[in-house]
Amino acid sequence: MAFVSIFRARNSTALQKLMRSVVPNTVRHKASASAPAPKLVPDEYDLPYVCTEVPGPKTKALLQEMDSITKNTGTIQLFADFKASRGNFLVDVDGNRFLDCFTQISSIPLGYNHPALLETVLNPENAIAMVNRPSLGVFPSEEYPRRMAAALLSVAPKGLDCVQTMMCGSCSNENAIKQAFMQYRVKERGGLPSQEEYESSMRNEAPGTPSLSVLSFNGAFHGRTVGMLSLTHSKPIHKVDVPAMDWPCVDFPHLKYPLDLHVQENQAEEDRCLQGVRDKIAEYKAKGNPVAVCIVEPVQAEGGDHHATPYFFNELQKILKEAGAAFIVDEVQTGGGVAGTMWAHEQWNLPESPDLVTFAKKLITGGYYYKPEFAPKQAYQVFNTWMGDPTKLMLLETVVYVIRRDNLLANTQKTGEHVMHGLQDLQEKHPQLISRVRGIGTFIAFDAATPETAADIVAKAKNQGIILGLCGKQTIRLRPALIFQIQHGDILLDTLSHILSDL
Amino acid sequence: MAFVSIFRARNSTALQKLMRSVVPNTVRHKASASAPAPKLVPDEYDLPYVCTEVPGPKTKALLQEMDSITKNTGTIQLFADFKASRGNFLVDVDGNRFLDCFTQISSIPLGYNHPALLETVLNPENAIAMVNRPSLGVFPSEEYPRRMAAALLSVAPKGLDCVQTMMCGSCSNENAIKQAFMQYRVKERGGLPSQEEYESSMRNEAPGTPSLSVLSFNGAFHGRTVGMLSLTHSKPIHKVDVPAMDWPCVDFPHLKYPLDLHVQENQAEEDRCLQGVRDKIAEYKAKGNPVAVCIVEPVQAEGGDHHATPYFFNELQKILKEAGAAFIVDEVQTGGGVAGTMWAHEQWNLPESPDLVTFAKKLITGGYYYKPEFAPKQAYQVFNTWMGDPTKLMLLETVVYVIRRDNLLANTQKTGEHVMHGLQDLQEKHPQLISRVRGIGTFIAFDAATPETAADIVAKAKNQGIILGLCGKQTIRLRPALIFQIQHGDILLDTLSHILSDL
Repeated sequence: MAFVSIFRARNSTALQKLMRSVVPNTVRHKASASAPAPKLVPDEYDLPYVCTEVPGPKTKALLQEMDSITKNTGTIQLFADFKASRGNFLVDVDGNRFLDCFTQISSIPLGYNHPALLETVLNPENAIAMVNRPSLGVFPSEEYPRRMAAALLSVAPKGLDCVQTMMCGSCSNENAIKQAFMQYRVKERGGLPSQEEYESSMRNEAPGTPSLSVLSFNGAFHGRTVGMLSLTHSKPIHKVDVPAMDWPCVDFPHLKYPLDLHVQENQAEEDRCLQGVRDKIAEYKAKGNPVAVCIVEPVQAEGGDHHATPYFFNELQKILKEAGAAFIVDEVQTGGGVAGTMWAHEQWNLPESPDLVTFAKKLITGGYYYKPEFAPKQAYQVFNTWMGDPTKLMLLETVVYVIRRDNLLANTQKTGEHVMHGLQDLQEKHPQLISRVRGIGTFIAFDAATPETAADIVAKAKNQGIILGLCGKQTIRLRPALIFQIQHGDILLDTLSHILSDL
Repeated sequence: MAFVSIFRARNSTALQKLMRSVVPNTVRHKASASAPAPKLVPDEYDLPYVCTEVPGPKTKALLQEMDSITKNTGTIQLFADFKASRGNFLVDVDGNRFLDCFTQISSIPLGYNHPALLETVLNPENAIAMVNRPSLGVFPSEEYPRRMAAALLSVAPKGLDCVQTMMCGSCSNENAIKQAFMQYRVKERGGLPSQEEYESSMRNEAPGTPSLSVLSFNGAFHGRTVGMLSLTHSKPIHKVDVPAMDWPCVDFPHLKYPLDLHVQENQAEEDRCLQGVRDKIAEYKAKGNPVAVCIVEPVQAEGGDHHATPYFFNELQKILKEAGAAFIVDEVQTGGGVAGTMWAHEQWNLPESPDLVTFAKKLITGGYYYKPEFAPKQAYQVFNTWMGDPTKLMLLETVVYVIRRDNLLANTQKTGEHVMHGLQDLQEKHPQLISRVRGIGTFIAFDAATPETAADIVAKAKNQGIILGLCGKQTIRLRPALIFQIQHGDILLDTLSHILSDL
């Protein structure tokens, strides 16, 4: 109902013209699989196509141009031709066409140039939102409450009835943690701050500036602001030379695979980590810097795709509840359907919801859900100029509509199972090269034998038209879009099979 | 040249239809001034119009709806009808039309529904950017270097040859400060980090996690992330109950007005604050937490519109250079033309540029300029998923074009002088009610006799169709768009004159 207005036939000539221009009438390669499923995106390419070495000469020229602007281009892999990109296929400026299994660091929900999104942005009514950016905390637009409900509340995790938008993953975590600190102090003191607290806070002094800490896990990634970087422990290059808060950190489970052959060992590993949580909470309480918040990813992604079992998260919630610390689940990378459910933590069957759940990436907008009792008690406690971006909410409304219309959660589950089985077969054939195939939905990873092998596989895949991601020390991760289908999985598996056989 | 493509006549039917719908054919009021200057925005309204009490019934109903979603709506003043808004006039859902002298907390450069911006977003070519958001650090689009040059390098402060985009003011300050920390350590150690430093940083421990501090000023506002909040000292409600870094803070000058009658006193005040800087640098060096960075606003805006003279900033730069600390100027609120120059710090005539200059708000995108030597030395040191937003850069390119085409810096200087003179007249007539009229460009403020008087003036103005901002304890600030002209200044001055006479 909320979407009726989006899909009215309007501006249709401009849209049709654009769609024609987006998908050039080049000869298409035939797919290798015999009878692929109907495409979720019309006019998608069938196969990757590589015509230069990667990076190609045009990317190299643009890289030089860019380097004179930022002097910080060591991370750029290629310059994209987004107009030629389509569905699961990213085209670069040199005309190479990649099956994209990494999707802009897992941030593209519906692939490239999805027709529903093009229609949304070409709707002249929506242009109004694009040129009049409000300060959402002061002068929001008439449509804002309806859009928040349609885009975010309609997919809210159970028990989390409030939601706040922000700009990105880091500031979503920042503000979720701030709300948790505030609620901790309100509970501890039984009400609002005193005059002395207000005044001392202006000088960063106690009692207004409290000594409170946030517990995080080794291998975690929660962002790169000074505060969030204190909670990030995935790679030293992110952290070195930057000061940090005195906040504790404990081990996250490293499970053995296959899970069904290591049940007891893995539970012992999870119990060891849970004891670490209890110990750090006691240690930081004793030293006068108590743990007010714990933040955890359902899967440690940047840190190397470390999973834990529902048992671990259920026990963690119990420990935190007992300690009076808030339980924040960082779903920045796992949220939005890639786990096969809208939120990865839904698969834990917790007796009650986490206290706050943060998101960004595939959700297009940053933000976080929270229990009503974690709402700020006073105006301007959690506030900033923009408080998110309504144009991102507008896109998310369409994304959520398409996820439902096209059953993309079911597609992700089905494709995920298919790819998992294929990778398990490859792992059996090449146990000396890859191991620890693991995943939920299409959020799948495997380890290479060495960091060099991992880099080598990823480089070879790219030169054969497949973009993969690296994480941790030697892990290769898949982060495809929600429109990644079995036929795309087959292209990936075929290519990996050839690469592994040739190594 | 870079803009030729933006202004090709295209999609013109959709644009014309939209423009007609944006400006309803209502009867316009006549302007009070006899011969207003030609309007910088065609079809702008002439006068404010208030038909309900503010907030009106429709805003009140939406407020209830919104409160069920965030439980954090105490800051919302009204719900806007952006479609009906135009130029300097913001229309709310109840049909009230306000002369907007606050412009979404100073973040709207060209007013509402500027035709050049509408044309930009309705260009179907630009739709591609809107639905394909890249991870700019890894897979930027072909147009990205050209857009960075046209939108940002073309207005770069002298001597600051590199620029990085970010998402908002807070994360621009966060990352500028990180680059300063990194450069400090590279200089101090004479090269890249050691293995021991990389390893210890993963545990937030020395030597990889250094004990380094950032100096800020009482009254400053640099954002609300945990790190930036440690540098923000404008209002306790922003800070209370949130832990902070141990970073030093010193007084910022509080000048007496009119400046020409208090030259000696004001220099003594500035010297006192400069001595505070020297003392804190010595104190924090002695306690093993040396000042690696100092961040300062050209005008402390949220803190109460405190200005300092070019003398102060020149001396500050000398002190920091001597101490080996980076000098960051936070132009998030002052940048983008509102000072009558593109950057407020250009008016200080520094012998060399600051080391880094941050921006957001009127620049549409967040980001910061830096000297090339402050660039990160290694890939992934300053990085995140999105690294800014190309759709904002696209809008900024048009904004910069219009600023030049329409001579908006000159307009801002001229309007600013006119409004300053008008306010000085009012201050002479009502010395018991308002004082300390001050400003650069249209970045103007005055103090009310008491906090209650300030709130009363702002509330009365709103009910007479003018939106003003409050800051500090009892300061009223003007933050109009760059298209604010003398005739708009006259509406403001007339209304203020009536309000002050009636108090």
